[in-house]
Order: sequence, then structure tokens, then C-alpha cells
Amino acid sequence: MERYDPAEERASRAILRGIRLEARETVSAVRLIPLGGLGEIGKNMLAIDTGDDLLVVDCGLQFPEEEMLGIDLVIPDITYLQENRDRLRGIVITHGHEDHIGAIPYVIPRLKGTPIWATRLAAGLIRVKLREHRLIDDVPLFEYGPGDSIALGGFRVEPFRVNHSIPDSVGLAIRTRLGTIVHTGDFKFDHTPVDGMPADFARLARLGDEGVLALCSDSTYAERPGYTPSEQAVSRALLNVFYEAPGRIIVATFASLIARIQQVIDAAVRTNRKVAIIGRSMEQNVQIASELGYLSAPPGTLVRPEDVTRYHGREIAIITTGSQGEPMSSLARMATREHRLIKIVPGDTVVISATPIPGNETLINRTIDNLFKQGAEVLYSRVSDVHVQGHASQEELKMMLNLVRPKYFVPIHGEYRMLVQHAKLAQAVGMQDEQIFVLEDGEVLEIDERGATVIDQLPINEVYVDGLAVGDVTNVILRDRRQLASDGILVVVFEVDRQSSRLVNEPDILCRGFVYPGNLPTLIAKARDAVAGELRHEFEPHRSEWKTVTNRVREVLGRFIWDQTRQRPMILPIVVEV
Amino acid sequence: MERYDPAEERASRAILRGIRLEARETVSAVRLIPLGGLGEIGKNMLAIDTGDDLLVVDCGLQFPEEEMLGIDLVIPDITYLQENRDRLRGIVITHGHEDHIGAIPYVIPRLKGTPIWATRLAAGLIRVKLREHRLIDDVPLFEYGPGDSIALGGFRVEPFRVNHSIPDSVGLAIRTRLGTIVHTGDFKFDHTPVDGMPADFARLARLGDEGVLALCSDSTYAERPGYTPSEQAVSRALLNVFYEAPGRIIVATFASLIARIQQVIDAAVRTNRKVAIIGRSMEQNVQIASELGYLSAPPGTLVRPEDVTRYHGREIAIITTGSQGEPMSSLARMATREHRLIKIVPGDTVVISATPIPGNETLINRTIDNLFKQGAEVLYSRVSDVHVQGHASQEELKMMLNLVRPKYFVPIHGEYRMLVQHAKLAQAVGMQDEQIFVLEDGEVLEIDERGATVIDQLPINEVYVDGLAVGDVTNVILRDRRQLASDGILVVVFEVDRQSSRLVNEPDILCRGFVYPGNLPTLIAKARDAVAGELRHEFEPHRSEWKTVTNRVREVLGRFIWDQTRQRPMILPIVVEV
Repeated sequence: MERYDPAEERASRAILRGIRLEARETVSAVRLIPLGGLGEIGKNMLAIDTGDDLLVVDCGLQFPEEEMLGIDLVIPDITYLQENRDRLRGIVITHGHEDHIGAIPYVIPRLKGTPIWATRLAAGLIRVKLREHRLIDDVPLFEYGPGDSIALGGFRVEPFRVNHSIPDSVGLAIRTRLGTIVHTGDFKFDHTPVDGMPADFARLARLGDEGVLALCSDSTYAERPGYTPSEQAVSRALLNVFYEAPGRIIVATFASLIARIQQVIDAAVRTNRKVAIIGRSMEQNVQIASELGYLSAPPGTLVRPEDVTRYHGREIAIITTGSQGEPMSSLARMATREHRLIKIVPGDTVVISATPIPGNETLINRTIDNLFKQGAEVLYSRVSDVHVQGHASQEELKMMLNLVRPKYFVPIHGEYRMLVQHAKLAQAVGMQDEQIFVLEDGEVLEIDERGATVIDQLPINEVYVDGLAVGDVTNVILRDRRQLASDGILVVVFEVDRQSSRLVNEPDILCRGFVYPGNLPTLIAKARDAVAGELRHEFEPHRSEWKTVTNRVREVLGRFIWDQTRQRPMILPIVVEV
Repeated sequence: MERYDPAEERASRAILRGIRLEARETVSAVRLIPLGGLGEIGKNMLAIDTGDDLLVVDCGLQFPEEEMLGIDLVIPDITYLQENRDRLRGIVITHGHEDHIGAIPYVIPRLKGTPIWATRLAAGLIRVKLREHRLIDDVPLFEYGPGDSIALGGFRVEPFRVNHSIPDSVGLAIRTRLGTIVHTGDFKFDHTPVDGMPADFARLARLGDEGVLALCSDSTYAERPGYTPSEQAVSRALLNVFYEAPGRIIVATFASLIARIQQVIDAAVRTNRKVAIIGRSMEQNVQIASELGYLSAPPGTLVRPEDVTRYHGREIAIITTGSQGEPMSSLARMATREHRLIKIVPGDTVVISATPIPGNETLINRTIDNLFKQGAEVLYSRVSDVHVQGHASQEELKMMLNLVRPKYFVPIHGEYRMLVQHAKLAQAVGMQDEQIFVLEDGEVLEIDERGATVIDQLPINEVYVDGLAVGDVTNVILRDRRQLASDGILVVVFEVDRQSSRLVNEPDILCRGFVYPGNLPTLIAKARDAVAGELRHEFEPHRSEWKTVTNRVREVLGRFIWDQTRQRPMILPIVVEV
């Protein structure tokens, strides 16, 4: 059903004709350049460069790590793409998750006119983003799907179906003159997926028979032994919960996990419950998925959030956001009695149908604790089978390697140790060390008929999005924020006579976020004396180098404060000439 | 071997005689008051109060959560103990882990003269702390061990052996006139522990036969089904690693995990390797444990860190700190080539013999990634059996409940959901709801002959240690630090004529940790104009209320900055009268 529209392909070809095509018969090498997602989780982006044509797979964002204070998002460094904009034939998307499409609104204004290809659901989600950023009219966005073969410059891109935790996920066979590159996207093998469409083993086997130059395969769960269970396991677990729950059921999951939402709706229908969707991103995704035919519910099943209270507990199920404990999410607010519509009552059963993303454990645990305190029964991944992950485990990764039998293998999508574990799996199925390349972002792997070598390392920076600032956050700013966060700030104001350069009176000291054992005014008074005493002679007539003076202030006051408090607040001296 | 010294008991009795004993025949109730460790992991402290006598079990610290910016440690709120100091008979310690002894140096100066009782190894570790804080002469510290029966006011305290991840761990049978309270400490059941001394089942069964009023039992792993494996499993896994490793072996674990250190030494001896201990806390603990007889190595086994390079890779094993990825730890510095003595080389095998404490995952993963990048082979808990945890799993918790068969049950040591899961286990073995009390810190459970009820909730605050400041960090300071961390600070300096109160010239604006899309000087200039323009009329003659003016500045400048940047930096207006 995600067949793509030939009229749109014609339109795309017209656009592509306008782009200078410079494919030559002499193409002799292809370069794989990961611009994001290798050595990290998130901001997935892989560039494939033949010298004539440049293609990009995925354009994702990353959520900031703990020490990236105040940062909203991290996006890939696209300097290489900007420098080679004239050869860039398009961005092809494997599926609609944030770590694969989320950077598009930030990247595309710098790569104006680049066509984007995505499966139908991913394209729907991209359109929402482009509308929000008022970019919808600037971007040529096309749909493709399994079975299609799209010419982009000298590349042909052929999507094939894979299973993942969002419908309409594909891997890509990318044909170059030197051979075929297979990019798995995010994938797992599920013989009984919720949408009834298993990954296309036959296609992978055929590609393997034809011969594959390089395989780039998802490493997210390369540390996990065995097979990832089928979504069926979750269907059964959910149905048990729905049969047994004495009151309302509230299921929290990822807004993008359309298959899970369908499972909850199915269980509700089986047990005669109405379903309310609560939470902005959840409502939005359910709407798009329903419009595009990826989600279905019998008429009358869905009710408005406002109407939940009209039903008895056993007649209702709620699907909501907050499975990662995000403090502003619906579930977190329900757990603290701050939600406008839903208050948790004893008898409620809350199902958290998601695994914690590393780093989110504390927030999720806090939400679970708060729900228990409200009297709810809570089922979560450590104590129940209410979730399976969306990525292939070790045996599936080996199966992918054995089906595709590539000449070269590049593990992608994962932190460094996951890539290493994935490389070990490739060794286990018989690949030689010289066929396997554990790369990091920015490394340039050149493959030609003689072999494959890492020939270069592009300088790759973290590009931070903070409010309206994209790429303006420097390490100096982050270092300052860390110091401010840890020990606060002291502002010292000196009034100095403009003519004589002499200190007019004792310096003023203000502080914020700074802690002192005991009485603060006393400390400030002592600090003022210390600074004034030791620095009075610095304020001499006709001294113009205030920088030297303020550096001395930092040093003297810093030492005094450390001795008294074992703290190192930021010290900001301000000289006011009067 | 941890028999305690009768001479010391005599000394203790002499001290105790000095304390007013006011036990009466009419004692009719006992109160359990958790002061820390319930609804959280860490800062364990339980008060037991008969009205005449007050006893405290454990005195631990907690490591700060992510949003406690700049905080070093959190300790229990001991207001209740300070208010009832005259009835406080002692602090009894179950084992030498930081979350059971770490708050002693901060608490004891406020509870001067209170005797502390601990097992031999725990007492050794407490002494180190007291020496560091120059408190060693102020604290009556006594040793006890399994088989002892210590009178503390109207209580008798009888330690019994349990297994845990540090030797010399005990649970406590605490005799009161109303009945016996059993406190498990941290425990697991291991039939084949490294030190050969399994938990004392027989004693627990006898206590159960006698009748137990209340059981307070460790809930840390109440979410984990089944049994915790024996330490033997780790011995086997380690020995395999030692046989197969082609070069050096570096084992990182907790400095307190003496049994694990012994296992590594044993494996090294079996495979003819020398052992070097690296890392300050590791060296300190190994020294204390060796002196006290809890750790042994054949002569010549241990070598100095400086001498590691004299041996071939296959001749050496290193035991070090950093299993939680702590950035300043030895392992983290080895992983980034910053360690003074040890540089990781290909052929090294690193074993991380610990599970991540929730919240530390990111740091540990980063260390593992860095080790792989240096070419090491890394074995860690997700991919290898090189660690078992120190706490009982569900089946062991049920066994404890069935052995002790208490009249009332209070799950302790755990976040709220763990306490709830533990309560469910008690229900599963047949206890009734009215026998089970899921308490939070500060709740007062009163037990008398008629029954048990929560009669009060003491106000309990987080007590933060930050540098030399203990308890001085307020929520205002933390809120300020969060704002500073997120969006930085703008300092606005106004020079105002002292006589006329008029603005002398345009305000100065400085910023730190603040980010703006594009050019900062331009923004600052615009902001200055905006503030000066909108506020010039505020600076009127004879205005003495600068607070009103500075509030207006915050408002006007805050709005301007938000519009331009979508940031909310702290705004600190400073008025300088000239």
C-alpha cells in the first residue's frame, strides 16, 4: 500500500534532469563516509560518494547527553555535503524515526533544493516537521517503497522491506557502477509482525546471489544474544493484562511505535474497551498513521480524552506518551496528579510498553514510583513482557550477514562497542579482518576493484541546536555552563575613578547558585576585604590594562573562596569607570 | 575471626553506664522510623524508638542525582536524632559500604559521644574516614560480630552472618521488650561464598521459631526473579578469562568488593600472574582488608604499580577502580591514555566486574568504547558472566520471609517500586495486607500489642554536602544553578547618578554560558538599546526603590532575549550609583 506515485517520479526526474549529471565511464571507486551514527546512538547519516555523484542515507537527530548542558538537540555535521552540494543527488530515508529524519528541518535550509525520498509514512511525518518549520514549499519530497527502483544521478536506489518498530521501514540496495551497497536501515526479522508484512528475506538472498559489494548493517542490539522475540509475544502479554485488569488501563509507549498502538487497540476491542489517545505527539502520529492507512480501529472505538470519565474503569483504555519518564509528558503528569484530565486512582493499571533508552532510567523509575504511590498497578519492562525491542539481536545479525554475503562489511548505527561486537559476529560467520571496517564518524572508506582502505578522516564537529541557535554553541559556552552549574557565580563590581584609576570604594560582590558553609554576608564581607586589601595597589593612576587587574581579581578571590568553601564558582569582575 | 574484644565491650559498658538509662517496665510500643533508604537507593538509616531508648541502624550516604547540580553527597536528615539525643543509645552498622557508613563523619559531630558498633572490617573502614575528618578521638567505636549480644539501653543487639558483596556483613536481631526486630542489612544467600562462610540460615530459623515482631528486609533486587547466582560462577568465569587472555588482564571492580579482589588474586595465582593494585581507594581497601585478615595472597604475588612494565603481558594482572566509569578513576584514565603508569595496548584484556549503578550507564559505556578504541578486548556485564550482584533476588527474599515468619514486615533499602515488589513477595508467601507496611522516609510506624499503625510523618529534608557546606544548599541555589546550566547568565550594569538617579550612560551587558544565533555583539547592542529605551523613564530623580527598577529590567530584557533566541538566561541587573 506504500506503492509510490509514478507521476511524482516523473516530477522528480524533471528535477533531476536540471541537476548536472556527470557520471563517467571511468568511475573506479566508491567512498562510504559516515557523517553520524557511528560511535554513537542517533543522528544517523551516511554519505556515499562515487566522485561524480553523492547520495545521503538518513538525516537524523540525537538527544543531548547529560553534560551538554542546556542543549536541545544534536544534528550531523554537514560541512562535507555543503562543500559538495553540486554533486548531491538526494537524501534517501529508511524510516520515520527521529534519529533518521529529525535533522531534516535544520539541514535542508543549508542544502536547498536537495530532493528527499522516503516511504509513505516517513514522508507523512517529514511533512509535519517541514510545516512546523515553514519549509514545506522549499523541499522536493518524494515517496518510494519496496519494489521501486529510483535513479538518482549515477545511483539506483531500491528499497526492500524490513521489520522495525515503526511501519513502512525499508533497507536500501544502492546500485553503483562498482557494485551494490546494501544499507539495512534499522531492522529486525519478525515472521509474525503486527502489520503482517515480514522482512523480505527472498530479496536479500537474491541480492546475495547477485553479489554485494558492501553491507552497512544496524548494530544497535549487537550486544544481545539470540533472537529478538516477535511482536506476537507482546500481543499475548497485552491481552492478558486487558483481561485481568480490574479498572482502567493506561498504556505508555513511543508515539512512533504505531504497531504497538495497533496492538493496544486490538486488545481493547477484544475486551470491549474504548480507547482514548492522550498526548500531543501521540495524537499527531495516530492521526497521520490512520490517514495513511497504517492504523485502524473499528468505528466508535476511539473516544475523546474529555470523555474518559464517562466510562467505567473496565470500559476504557488510554494510550499515552511518557514511556521515557519525560517530565512534561502526559504519563509523568498523571503520576504527579498534574494532568488536566486524568488522575491516577487505585485500580488503574499502567503498562509502560518500552525499554528505557540509556540515560533515561532515573526519570522512568521516578515516574513508576510516583504511579505506585498513587495506588496504581504498574507493569514495566523489568517485571513484565509488555515490550520487545525494534532491533535485530545477534542471531538475526548473523542471518543478515549470511543472506547478503558482502565483500565488505561496515557495522553502522551504534556506539563503538556495539560496532565492535557486530564486527565479531561477522568474524564468527567467516569474514576476514580485511573485509570488516569498524569506522567512526568522518572516516572515509574508499572501495575500488583492488580493495578497501580508510583514506581520510574528515573533521566532524558536534552541531548543537539550542533554542534558535544552530551550531553557535561552542565548547567555551558549555564549559562556562558546567562551572556555573557546579558552583555558581560571583560577580565583583569595582567602581574606579576615570581620571585617577583609583578604586572609589570597596568592591560589591553578588552571587548566584553559590553555597557557603554558614553565614553568607559574613563571607562576602571578608571576601570584599581580602580583594580590596590585596588589590588596592593594582588600581594605579593611568592604568589602562583592566584585563590584567581583572585576572588578578579572579586569582585572589578564587583562592580565597576555595580556602573558605572548597568551591570554584565562576568569578566575573566588572570594572565601572566613574 | 571477626570475634570482638571483651575488653572493648567492658569499655563500652562503662560508657553506657554514663548514659541515663530510663527503661521502664511499662514500655508498651516500639516505633520504626526510617530516616533514609526507603523510597531511594542510599543513605540508609533506620531509627528504632521505644520511648525510653533510641537506636539507629546504619548511617549511609547517597550519591547525588543528575539534577542536584554541583552537590557532592546527600546524607540523612538527623533532626529527629538531635532532638532525642538524650535517649540515643548508639549507632549499629551492618557492613562497611558507603551507603551504610558514609554519612558518619558528617553526622557524628552533631551527635557527639554516640557510640558506634560495627563488624571488624566495617570498623576499619570507618576509622579511615574518621581519621580523614580528624574525628578519630571524638567517637567511641566498638567492634561486634556474629554470636555477640550487646546491651544498648533497653535493646539487645545480636548480629548474625549474611552474605553480601563485602565481607563481614551482618543482619541484626534487635531485642526489645515488645519482641524481636530482625534487620537483614544488605544480604543475599550464597552457599559457596568466596570466604567460605554462608549466611546463618539456622540462626534465622531459630529466630523465626522464637517469634519475630517485625522484619526489615533488603529490597534492592526485589524486581529480579529467581536466585542470585553464587560467587562461584564468577570464579569460574574469571579463571577462563585468565587462562585464555593473550596479554595483560586489567580487572576493574568496586574497591569495597573484597571477595572479588580475592577471586582475581586466586585466578592470577592459578595462572602464574603477578598482581598490581592501582587506584587510591582500591589500594587503601586492599591494605585494610589484608591487615585485618580478609584478603590473602601468597608472598611475592603483589607487585608495585611501577613494576608492571617489567613483566610480560601474560605474567601480570591489574586490579583497579573505575568500574562505574568515574571520569577521574584509574580505568577511565587508562582508557583515554591519561594514566601515569598504564597505557592500554592491543592484546590487553579488560574485565569490568560490576553492574552499572543506574545513572552511571553513559559513563561506563564511554569507558568501554574508549578501551575498545585503544585495541583492548573488553568483557563487561552485558556480554560476559564476570559479575554477580550482592543482593538477594525474589526467591531468596521469599526464603528470608519464610524463615523469619515475622508478625509485621517492612521492606527497606530500595526505591518505592522495589519496596512495592517486595511487599508483593510477602503477599505471595501468605502475609496479609495489614501485616505489610510500605513506608517512606520519615513515616513513623508504631507497633504495640494491639497492632501496627503509621502514626506520623516527620518532615525529612534532603541534606546536601557541597564542598565544606553541609546542609546549607537550598532549593533556591539549586534552581539558580539549573537556570545557569541551561541558558547561562546576562549581567546588566547600570550607572546611575547618585543625586539625580538618572542613567549616566547606556547599560553594560556581559554574558557567560549564553548562546545566540549569529552575532553576539549585535544582539548585545540591540538588547542595550531595548533596555535603555524602555527603561530610561524608570530612572527618575529621587527614586530609592531600585528593586522595582531591576525587576522591570529582568522583565523587559528577559522578553527581548526570549523573542530573539528562545533562551531564558538568568538576568542579573546591577545598579552602580556614581
